Amino acid sequence: MAERESQVVLGLDPDPGALWPQRDAAREQATGDATQRAAAAVLAHCRAVIDATAPAVVAVKLQLARFELLGAPGRAVLAQVAEHARSRGLLVIADGKRGDIDVTAAAYAAGLFGGTDSPFGWIEGLRADLATVNPLMGVDALEPFVATARDSGAGVLVLVRTSNPGAADVEDLSVRGGGAVWERVAAIVDALGAAGVGEHGLSDVGAVVGATAPGHLARARELMPCATFLLPGVGAQGGRVDDLGAAFSPGRAGGLVAASRSIVGAYLSPEHSADGERPERAARAEAERLRESAWALSGA
Amino acid sequence: MAERESQVVLGLDPDPGALWPQRDAAREQATGDATQRAAAAVLAHCRAVIDATAPAVVAVKLQLARFELLGAPGRAVLAQVAEHARSRGLLVIADGKRGDIDVTAAAYAAGLFGGTDSPFGWIEGLRADLATVNPLMGVDALEPFVATARDSGAGVLVLVRTSNPGAADVEDLSVRGGGAVWERVAAIVDALGAAGVGEHGLSDVGAVVGATAPGHLARARELMPCATFLLPGVGAQGGRVDDLGAAFSPGRAGGLVAASRSIVGAYLSPEHSADGERPERAARAEAERLRESAWALSGA
Repeated sequence: MAERESQVVLGLDPDPGALWPQRDAAREQATGDATQRAAAAVLAHCRAVIDATAPAVVAVKLQLARFELLGAPGRAVLAQVAEHARSRGLLVIADGKRGDIDVTAAAYAAGLFGGTDSPFGWIEGLRADLATVNPLMGVDALEPFVATARDSGAGVLVLVRTSNPGAADVEDLSVRGGGAVWERVAAIVDALGAAGVGEHGLSDVGAVVGATAPGHLARARELMPCATFLLPGVGAQGGRVDDLGAAFSPGRAGGLVAASRSIVGAYLSPEHSADGERPERAARAEAERLRESAWALSGA
Repeated sequence: MAERESQVVLGLDPDPGALWPQRDAAREQATGDATQRAAAAVLAHCRAVIDATAPAVVAVKLQLARFELLGAPGRAVLAQVAEHARSRGLLVIADGKRGDIDVTAAAYAAGLFGGTDSPFGWIEGLRADLATVNPLMGVDALEPFVATARDSGAGVLVLVRTSNPGAADVEDLSVRGGGAVWERVAAIVDALGAAGVGEHGLSDVGAVVGATAPGHLARARELMPCATFLLPGVGAQGGRVDDLGAAFSPGRAGGLVAASRSIVGAYLSPEHSADGERPERAARAEAERLRESAWALSGA
């Protein structure tokens, strides 16, 4: 982050119906059935978006749902996109929000991080640097993710207070004895991360805290002083960089500002489309704008 | 269920290190890298388990984590196992416990149920009959799953009170104003399911209620009178069929009794291994034993 002076995470959740226009070339060229052709086009699109924005961002956040929708070819493309991001010096965040009982959580973690041994030989994982996880099932469902990530030099990002309106339905419920459900989850995050705090004072157990509810940020930081916050919801979901100051109180690496549609779809906005700007140029400009405002804010 | 006189769900969460012994033959025959060979062996194992137990069960529950671990070959095998289960007349439950914001939930749902249209043609989904979903992010994160399932003649199973010890950490928190978090989720399940109640009085929005906490079952049934309950945790996790009576109060289809390790690993238990029983025979005997006890209990 220091090297790139950026906290921006490029969110990739490629909809086969809304790829960058010139990616249509891939549609013509690709062979195979509909799923294979869609997967090939998604790969071309993701590579183009990464190439356009890489200098302004520190990581890609891959929305696993979009790749899963494309079956086996989608899973192959997911690995190729992760590899392409790594080749550009970017961290890879696997955004799958997984959560399950211990043995199952361990299987998910092996698949997302380093991989696993088997009687058939080594089974390679996705080698993500961070993965989002769901805490509903409690501490024993989170521990295998934390342990596996720690072994791999990776980390986890626990859903604490998400960016969607429905977060109010369960996460915001008031608990008898004080606090909301999400604040109890925040305490779990802080406890799980205590053994994983590194030299810069940040832990390998981070938190997802929606940028659309900035009022929660200061409280979240109080409860999780060592957690890196992944801040989704900037742009398309209404979050603003200027509201994210509390995320950066442990230092500039305290917050990762995630933006998906606002970067990838920048060329469709009135500002850019009026000039007939190419998607690459508009995406780079938007990523750069976010980078600058977050970097300035975090240093204030 | 009436036709087969069974409420038993065969859980398949194949660990490449613990497949049925004779599946080693597949290991020798299969070509490709470690992941491809493991996936081929997993496919052979799952087909054998399904063939051995199909007459005693109504559905397979596929643990998506285990297939994800095997990358693109694993995703192809997942579809093949689902197809094999369907060919034996079994329902397919995709156990992935997904949950995310609206557009992402819609992508997950399309992949798990019928599929989706795209500029590249129709992208086939897994065509699951039921999928487990995680309610942490609230109603707007559940609705796309419910809507897509309803359009496909399928259903969802919402995590309400899970079978692991960690369920106490978040699901059991007492909410100010009354009830636990899981009881609030139960109310959401009941409300979402109201428009999907069929001729037998059961809804297309069901609930996962762990068999290891039978004390919660009666209360769960009170809160969700029309929900089908998926009851995991019988056997290896300590749950007992005799404790599940409340699940069946709306009728025999009110409860699905899920067992994974207790069926697949039955041949390793002292009772069976002493006789040198083959895995097929032991699995069938255990599935049959569960079938009989659940069917008798549900008719009482």
